[in-house]
Amino acid sequence: MKKVKLAFLGLGTVGCGVMKVLRQNAEMFKRREGLDLDVKWVLVRDKSKPRAVDIDPATLTTDAGTILNDPEIDLVAEFMGGEEPAFTYIRKALMNGKSVVTANKEVIAKHWHTLEQEAVKSGAGLYYEASVAGGIPIIKTIRRSLQANHIQKFMGIINGTTNYILTRMSEDGSDFNTALKEAQRLGYAEPDPTADIEGLDAKFKLSILSTICFRNQVPLEHVFCEGITRVTAEDIAVAQQLGYGIKLLAIGKKHGDRIEARVHPTFIPLSHPLCAVRDSYNAIFIEGDIVGNLMFYGRGAGDFPTASAIVSDIITACQNENGHHRTGMDGAPVIFEKDWISRYYVRMLVSDRPGVLAEIAGLFGKHGVSIESVIQKNRGENASLIFITHEAHEQSLLRALEDMKGCAAVSSIESMIRVER
Amino acid sequence: MKKVKLAFLGLGTVGCGVMKVLRQNAEMFKRREGLDLDVKWVLVRDKSKPRAVDIDPATLTTDAGTILNDPEIDLVAEFMGGEEPAFTYIRKALMNGKSVVTANKEVIAKHWHTLEQEAVKSGAGLYYEASVAGGIPIIKTIRRSLQANHIQKFMGIINGTTNYILTRMSEDGSDFNTALKEAQRLGYAEPDPTADIEGLDAKFKLSILSTICFRNQVPLEHVFCEGITRVTAEDIAVAQQLGYGIKLLAIGKKHGDRIEARVHPTFIPLSHPLCAVRDSYNAIFIEGDIVGNLMFYGRGAGDFPTASAIVSDIITACQNENGHHRTGMDGAPVIFEKDWISRYYVRMLVSDRPGVLAEIAGLFGKHGVSIESVIQKNRGENASLIFITHEAHEQSLLRALEDMKGCAAVSSIESMIRVER
Repeated sequence: MKKVKLAFLGLGTVGCGVMKVLRQNAEMFKRREGLDLDVKWVLVRDKSKPRAVDIDPATLTTDAGTILNDPEIDLVAEFMGGEEPAFTYIRKALMNGKSVVTANKEVIAKHWHTLEQEAVKSGAGLYYEASVAGGIPIIKTIRRSLQANHIQKFMGIINGTTNYILTRMSEDGSDFNTALKEAQRLGYAEPDPTADIEGLDAKFKLSILSTICFRNQVPLEHVFCEGITRVTAEDIAVAQQLGYGIKLLAIGKKHGDRIEARVHPTFIPLSHPLCAVRDSYNAIFIEGDIVGNLMFYGRGAGDFPTASAIVSDIITACQNENGHHRTGMDGAPVIFEKDWISRYYVRMLVSDRPGVLAEIAGLFGKHGVSIESVIQKNRGENASLIFITHEAHEQSLLRALEDMKGCAAVSSIESMIRVER
Repeated sequence: MKKVKLAFLGLGTVGCGVMKVLRQNAEMFKRREGLDLDVKWVLVRDKSKPRAVDIDPATLTTDAGTILNDPEIDLVAEFMGGEEPAFTYIRKALMNGKSVVTANKEVIAKHWHTLEQEAVKSGAGLYYEASVAGGIPIIKTIRRSLQANHIQKFMGIINGTTNYILTRMSEDGSDFNTALKEAQRLGYAEPDPTADIEGLDAKFKLSILSTICFRNQVPLEHVFCEGITRVTAEDIAVAQQLGYGIKLLAIGKKHGDRIEARVHPTFIPLSHPLCAVRDSYNAIFIEGDIVGNLMFYGRGAGDFPTASAIVSDIITACQNENGHHRTGMDGAPVIFEKDWISRYYVRMLVSDRPGVLAEIAGLFGKHGVSIESVIQKNRGENASLIFITHEAHEQSLLRALEDMKGCAAVSSIESMIRVER
């Protein structure tokens, strides 16, 4: 039996979840894993605040130094969230040779390289399974079970809030604001929902996931990001008629030395397994050159699902498997693609008169965008045209749309949504 | 760079796939994993047989002893299939301190305990990720990423042939024999399809999967098994009308010290993620006490998907992660449940006269089986009754059906299929 002294940084929802799991399944960890896990310190801001778990007041401290300089502490688990002071504490812990387990997507997305270097230097371990897709074991699986593969592409539903909102819009016909309010009422969305609905949360996770999949750092500034606030009930209805669902996807692709990483609402065929991922569930669909298609599905958030990933990391860290410090990065220089190739859905209000379609089709053609299908909906003042294009360069499509804004026949371009198959 | 000498036992479809992958991605294994993997020997029955890969004739041998007694060989990868001589060779390799990677579900299902003991004794490793669900990384994921959880239940589509047949029956309205012929034509089913369609292949895999999930040996003789040969186009049509699909599921449940393990055709709601698993794809749906629901989806067979799992095991074995010999078995005595609780779909041909439903409902009631819904289809000679029961004990349901066989109003009991939600 190996006795391990842990310290927690933070004791919010996730921290309390981890504490409950460590207690609830303590006998199992001793029996199956040979580990006696003891939480010696918990860093909190306010010792008197009521908590969701009973806790010995002697373990609480408001001083990070107590933890970071305690030679008895083998491992630090961080649940504070946010960039600072979490980053400083994690770095200090690694410099002091303490392994770190964290769920902090912002710190890992922004500072992975620095932290990994500190870990290699001191021989400590750095684990962050919970930072992407909560309870779904994805990071360790890619690193430890898919080593035979070059991963060429992945598409993930990695934000539960937006998936819940899009599911409600799709199944109940609600508009965005109604679905958002419902999500807030149920606690799936924050009172300030910006980070979720604008795609920022997914952006952090995509940066981490593409770094792991492609074995090349994919810094945040190279991740394209568009949220779901402009997706309308009408777009969802039209998508369904065309055989598609709309999901906020985090997409990563690697072709040779070119990497693209983008978060945006996406048309995806109703028959695609990602389309069956409903409510606040997450899923990641991966294409490897050897294994073909894989999908991993589960809870992307919540105290217990997140705790499942964190406790697994704690156990892995304590068993001190070797090979950790092989970061497995390829390190070759890469180009971050901005002018990727995609199919596009475009919906626009137009004048209902002969020749309009020819004029608009001409503008697509001028920029090398060819059209797979077009449907006219309604007549007269509400006439609209709905296009699905063949594969085209993003910049060509954008230039075509720019041209159309100056075209008398086009009253407004209502939507442009990328299409994946 | 660590140089490792491997030997293959067998060079059929999977062996050739592994050889191709080791060559195709050799540079990546050196760069990312620090491994130079060299196949020194390949055991074959016939050296002159043409192969799907070019191979230096000097590496071919027909004598297993050459491999098993070669002190230079660190690791043996077995792709022969079948119980013997594979079991004898694997055991000998382990006794000689060579780690073994195998895709052999039959050997692992029948001899896991013996082989694991040999491995512990000699300090060699035993890896069999590819034995269940081909390319889907499930075994290592349960052991290395879900340690925080008691797994309480899983349901898997772990035979691609039967899933392909059921998909065709469901989407094209084909009957069983037509769909089977189509599967054979496409190479998804063997000329002798018995092992797949009678559920024996799934039974081996279920024995392994439930041993891993429940940390208790689940020997083959305790696995219930019923194939798909009695599933009719009519059952599938009725299922769809009721909001269900029919899948061959491998189900494992653990309640306290009771384990149930059963393979059989199953009604599963159309909204369940397993229902979206089409064609020859596999998927495993898991419920953990901490993580909640998870699903893993991918290719369950084929040379490259299987090679993905095998090469991952080879890399893991070469990096010699510690902790391997913690088998993680709970070892407490368990009871194998034969009288499990399930819902049931029952379809029967009946006399079309007043009072028949009351009579049949009475027989269900007599055995404690209560009815959730009943539908009468057709009138006159083709009149049939379709029941969905509430949860009931299997043995009670079987006794009720036995009674009905002696009941004048019942012409025949056409189908009984278990229902999961």
